[in-house]
Amino acid sequence: MPTAKKPNPSSLVKPRTAVASGKKAPAPARLPKKTYETRTAVLRERLVQLQVELKAQPFQVLFIVAGVAGAGRGEVLNTLGSWLDPRGVETFSFDQPTDEERTRPFLWRFWRSLPPQGKIGIYAGSWYTETLAEEARSKKELATLDHDLARIRSFEKAMVDNDTLIIKVWLNLSKDAQRARFKKYESDANTAWRVTADDWRHHRIYDRLERTAVHILQATHSPAAPWTVVDSEDERARNLAVGELLVNRLTAHQALLARLARTRPKAVPDPKPKPLRAYGARRLQGLPLDQLITPEEYEEKRDKWLSRLNTAVSAAKAAGRAITFVFEGSDAAGKGGAIRRLTSAIDVRDYRVYSIAKPTEEEKSHHYLWRFWRHVPRDGQIAIYDRSWYGRVLVERLEGFCRPDEYQRAFTEINDFERQLTERGQIVIKFWLHISRAEQLARFRARETTAFKNHKINAEDWRNRRKWDGYEIAVGDMLALTDTAAAPWHLIPANDKRYARLQVLRTSCRAIQAALGS
Amino acid sequence: MPTAKKPNPSSLVKPRTAVASGKKAPAPARLPKKTYETRTAVLRERLVQLQVELKAQPFQVLFIVAGVAGAGRGEVLNTLGSWLDPRGVETFSFDQPTDEERTRPFLWRFWRSLPPQGKIGIYAGSWYTETLAEEARSKKELATLDHDLARIRSFEKAMVDNDTLIIKVWLNLSKDAQRARFKKYESDANTAWRVTADDWRHHRIYDRLERTAVHILQATHSPAAPWTVVDSEDERARNLAVGELLVNRLTAHQALLARLARTRPKAVPDPKPKPLRAYGARRLQGLPLDQLITPEEYEEKRDKWLSRLNTAVSAAKAAGRAITFVFEGSDAAGKGGAIRRLTSAIDVRDYRVYSIAKPTEEEKSHHYLWRFWRHVPRDGQIAIYDRSWYGRVLVERLEGFCRPDEYQRAFTEINDFERQLTERGQIVIKFWLHISRAEQLARFRARETTAFKNHKINAEDWRNRRKWDGYEIAVGDMLALTDTAAAPWHLIPANDKRYARLQVLRTSCRAIQAALGS
Repeated sequence: MPTAKKPNPSSLVKPRTAVASGKKAPAPARLPKKTYETRTAVLRERLVQLQVELKAQPFQVLFIVAGVAGAGRGEVLNTLGSWLDPRGVETFSFDQPTDEERTRPFLWRFWRSLPPQGKIGIYAGSWYTETLAEEARSKKELATLDHDLARIRSFEKAMVDNDTLIIKVWLNLSKDAQRARFKKYESDANTAWRVTADDWRHHRIYDRLERTAVHILQATHSPAAPWTVVDSEDERARNLAVGELLVNRLTAHQALLARLARTRPKAVPDPKPKPLRAYGARRLQGLPLDQLITPEEYEEKRDKWLSRLNTAVSAAKAAGRAITFVFEGSDAAGKGGAIRRLTSAIDVRDYRVYSIAKPTEEEKSHHYLWRFWRHVPRDGQIAIYDRSWYGRVLVERLEGFCRPDEYQRAFTEINDFERQLTERGQIVIKFWLHISRAEQLARFRARETTAFKNHKINAEDWRNRRKWDGYEIAVGDMLALTDTAAAPWHLIPANDKRYARLQVLRTSCRAIQAALGS
Repeated sequence: MPTAKKPNPSSLVKPRTAVASGKKAPAPARLPKKTYETRTAVLRERLVQLQVELKAQPFQVLFIVAGVAGAGRGEVLNTLGSWLDPRGVETFSFDQPTDEERTRPFLWRFWRSLPPQGKIGIYAGSWYTETLAEEARSKKELATLDHDLARIRSFEKAMVDNDTLIIKVWLNLSKDAQRARFKKYESDANTAWRVTADDWRHHRIYDRLERTAVHILQATHSPAAPWTVVDSEDERARNLAVGELLVNRLTAHQALLARLARTRPKAVPDPKPKPLRAYGARRLQGLPLDQLITPEEYEEKRDKWLSRLNTAVSAAKAAGRAITFVFEGSDAAGKGGAIRRLTSAIDVRDYRVYSIAKPTEEEKSHHYLWRFWRHVPRDGQIAIYDRSWYGRVLVERLEGFCRPDEYQRAFTEINDFERQLTERGQIVIKFWLHISRAEQLARFRARETTAFKNHKINAEDWRNRRKWDGYEIAVGDMLALTDTAAAPWHLIPANDKRYARLQVLRTSCRAIQAALGS
């Protein structure tokens, strides 16, 4: 397993002083073909064994192959392709983003195309590609670059925390070796096409690209997701090094997970959780729920606020600002009704409502935020969530669908996710619709006796109701730990449906206006 | 259930002669609120029952809501949203295509976002939207419009053949009623925002839009996917009509499927199928398989053809032409090896290889072409299939994974799918790699004795081998029925791997050059 210390810049390149002083560097010893074939046979056997084992394991592998032009990214990819069972592999080669990708947070396109558990994703182009390329053209200031690198670090941390194995290879080639390889290709008419004008351009700015690469590698080298530099002058040695790295990291990762399975706390139901923040639930308990509004007053004010909301939403669209609405609340709190009043002021083409139920099998084989990342709206569009990623710290916490360390980590992960939305310019509006225990009982009973509402109530709702106190603590922690300046929580007293709906309209309106500075 | 005769243009609009002659038309009788509430309660109960039943049924519902401006598409959507369990519904509102969508065949964006079986997809914007909008701006010639309509018909036919239920509603509103509604909204400051400049523009060209709509509705009205015109002047009557249509069509469709389950032929394994085309397998059997090539000759020619292929592929990319490669062949025919030689001439950013295995649960709950539609490359990109949609007429036919009527229909569906690719400018190159029975045996044995190839052979391969004759017939039918001018089959003698790989390179190169006219 590679060590986790920072890659030394000097280890990235062969010394080039020999050339500068006019002497010829001695040709390095090449790996003999016979040795290569023997070692390859052993390697391939182990690789396919590991792939079979991986199929049943609860993690995915992200294998990033980056490097110097001419070092052989394509060949490495093809070699891995011939060694691995292709049905367990997905290959990605991200390059310039498309407009669907460009109008969303930087990491969106990587989140939405992650391989599921049991598979290996090989990245010939990855979240590093643009960073590397942009700097090469000096388009980005160092500050922006470092900001992107921080994003990448936190993305990789989220993956690793979720047991994903990340392997990052930097195929290195000295400036001399690069020139020699290009020249060799060009000397034969049949292989000349392998060298492009872009390759020679990269050769000319070799030193600048190298400085950038060293900076990026150092900034994103961590114990959990280390870089491994593979010298690529000898192609056979390069292939073997990459293959053996995959075998070693996979083997070590399996051992690590087996150890963790024994030592880390189990996921168990915890209907009476200990609060993480003592003051959390107080905000909830102190909410006055007895506001009332007459039907006449409601109708008059509703139309006024719908009109204003329409103006606000149109202004946000014109400004290219997306809006994400989150509706949370206990069962029967009136989330669906509030959402329908809200959408009645918005053009159907501009919003989508997502009702979040249990995750599907596909969703379960991914990070819990994966399904929400997929739905991130593009600039100017609106996503409305009827329940959301907060399920992680509510139902999943109480029912033991995730481990304690997982929901505890989730607060930070969720804040980070929402910050990526707001950094992109999105307006994030989160509602907790709050009703009293007695009001919920009345609504449950009404649902049971009204034929067409019958489907909205089942045994699970009654079971959840018995966990009321536990939910109050979980909600309290949620409010305390995810109420950020950029994405604050709005508590809505919802015992009176009309009052709640109006509050949602009014709050939405004001939040959008505030975000637009209008 | 609505009848299937063509919608009569005159039934689309209320007579407007009264206005022309200066007389005021009498106000139509409105549905009383009380009646509405009673009927709504019954309707909602039935709807949620049907939704519960739908969950377990092997079909999805596509519910299209289109209509005249001001007729209330948004309100209908919101009303349906309040009646249905949102977890069984997906809402779509397609408008202008994004660039990812624009650089692929017209139907791509609709195929890739279809709801799975057991769900209702509600389309506030659909495959009709652009057609309706474009014509309104007179951007499209009638010929282009009719071509799109033919595409839509064949898309809907494919859906219906797969047991999908399609419901299409046209919300109609006379010119007078439209003006009255707009005026009413504008008379109140709080509702004035509901009328946009675009709405008034639509009002001014009402007659032209109506003519286009009548043309589109008539051209896409079929027994299997009929249009239902719903008058929308009375909002309560409109909502009820839409809801009751959904109930009636769903009920009738369930009954239809129950009847079909008894009467249509079952899906059973058919290891010795009767050929559909007597001459089919002859082309296969007549293929000379004994071509050989020396390693030296191979290396020399390979580099020459790789170089030419790279030039051809670059030219295709520059011309914005996508390429779809299909590799089919019996087990151990050398598909993977041929693909890796091919990709060694292409920039990793420009292609993706798809290894097609058994469909996942998600894929099974869709039309069998769904998973291939999702991967359709954008203009200038390359998709390479290691096995493909032809599994439908090969393994699925022999193993009884689909019914006889399903694989028989597949030939036409596949031709239609590939035609949509070539019409978009894609180059479709299909290979059948053919080896003899004896050669397959030799390769199977080698796989069993080489440790790192061991994973490539299992009991299923041996079982498939025993069905050799059956596969020859299925492949023969495939070659006879899907060898089209735009997407022809290339038969590759593959007993000698080197010869086969070279043939693949040479054929690909020539096919691309021919398509580019170079």
